[in-house]
Amino acid sequence: MKAARQLAKRAWRERGRSFLAEGPQAVGEALRRSGVLTELFLTPQGAQRYPDVLEQAAGQGIPVHMVSGEVMAGLAQTVTPQGLVGVCGFIDVPLGELTSSGPRLVAVLANVRDPGNAGTVLRTADAAGADGVVFSAASVDPYNSKAVRSSAGSLFHLPVVVGAPLEEAIAALRGTGLQVLAADGSAGQLLGDPGGPDLARPTAWLFGNEAWGLPSDLLRLADEVMAVPIYGKAESLNLAAAAAVCLYAAARAMRS
Amino acid sequence: MKAARQLAKRAWRERGRSFLAEGPQAVGEALRRSGVLTELFLTPQGAQRYPDVLEQAAGQGIPVHMVSGEVMAGLAQTVTPQGLVGVCGFIDVPLGELTSSGPRLVAVLANVRDPGNAGTVLRTADAAGADGVVFSAASVDPYNSKAVRSSAGSLFHLPVVVGAPLEEAIAALRGTGLQVLAADGSAGQLLGDPGGPDLARPTAWLFGNEAWGLPSDLLRLADEVMAVPIYGKAESLNLAAAAAVCLYAAARAMRS
Repeated sequence: MKAARQLAKRAWRERGRSFLAEGPQAVGEALRRSGVLTELFLTPQGAQRYPDVLEQAAGQGIPVHMVSGEVMAGLAQTVTPQGLVGVCGFIDVPLGELTSSGPRLVAVLANVRDPGNAGTVLRTADAAGADGVVFSAASVDPYNSKAVRSSAGSLFHLPVVVGAPLEEAIAALRGTGLQVLAADGSAGQLLGDPGGPDLARPTAWLFGNEAWGLPSDLLRLADEVMAVPIYGKAESLNLAAAAAVCLYAAARAMRS
Repeated sequence: MKAARQLAKRAWRERGRSFLAEGPQAVGEALRRSGVLTELFLTPQGAQRYPDVLEQAAGQGIPVHMVSGEVMAGLAQTVTPQGLVGVCGFIDVPLGELTSSGPRLVAVLANVRDPGNAGTVLRTADAAGADGVVFSAASVDPYNSKAVRSSAGSLFHLPVVVGAPLEEAIAALRGTGLQVLAADGSAGQLLGDPGGPDLARPTAWLFGNEAWGLPSDLLRLADEVMAVPIYGKAESLNLAAAAAVCLYAAARAMRS
């Protein structure tokens, strides 16, 4: 219990290389990947409501602990864990595993700080058919409970690289033949304009911080810097919205 | 003070037809529209950091109240109001004002409950050059402080209709020549597929609830129901991400 509760903190997650999956969706996804779920905490209500989860966990020989709603509330970071929380082993992969898989679409998150944004970009990258997501060393931890929840299961769906030095990650991705496109609202080149880079080519999209975008030393790492056009009066797009437009533009071009 | 603090609650906002704009961006946008800001609360630090805001407010004859950081913390709903909070009069417009303006791109939010999502869709609609956003009667209040903050100023940029009965709003928009496209993840027709509706036509996009999408009685109101394609393993896209892809697809088609 105490060990599980400590997983709310990044340092403890990294020490135990474990994180919490909260709620039926995340726990269900964890169960689908053999060896990931190592412990399951349930309230009686959770057990009643999700008997299939309980059965699968028991069937895989995973230790199951029945706890009160009060104990569950102390364990879970989300407001509505719906009566079940699982302890999972880290599932990120080394950079080399991603690059050697022949990826065609990758999202790279540089200095993204908001866990909700990070999880949403992960979910969007998954939806857009990306082959992997790289979280730079300075980005939020994708195992943060809010990030896990915002990813809506996508953390379990595609290869995620955590804590990669950005220069190294970008060089490795370029080395496998990907063009590197940085999304930056201040760029002169607009997404979709004629004469821009060929989005049908294998691409790594580089996304920056919610507030201050990408600093010039990171922009230099990209082959091209592109902005999602602003047609109205908004100063900028929210990071997750900009990422959705960029990733889908690439996904669409690769399939047409 | 007490009156301002009560604006945290929707019922009080509606009674006084006033809401709170928190932080320099929202207050600055309010100041740009004459007659919108009716009172300004500042901490000494806020006054020092944003002297232009203080000067403009005073120049417009708006009552300015200096308050302590503690009082400010009790007033503001956001974690970091950065020392200034303004009281603003409602700025939504009647449905007829939007429809008579000859709109070409409109976002309609049906049953959207999360204020952060609602504000983000408003910001994205603004960025995509939409001519207005309609919040249905069952949707979250766009004057909610989280919605205002997530809109990042866009609440002040484009006509917003609040509390419109959905059937009426859709009929009125169609009456002005807009096609009505519903975004729904379960639709068979995929955005971008050949043979779909002409996105260069004036369009009202209908977006549903975060969790359960659009019920069948609302889907029937649309001319076409379309899904953003899911190329990976994600079950669905987050509402704001889906809205970004749909609104930008239309914005792009209208300009090409």
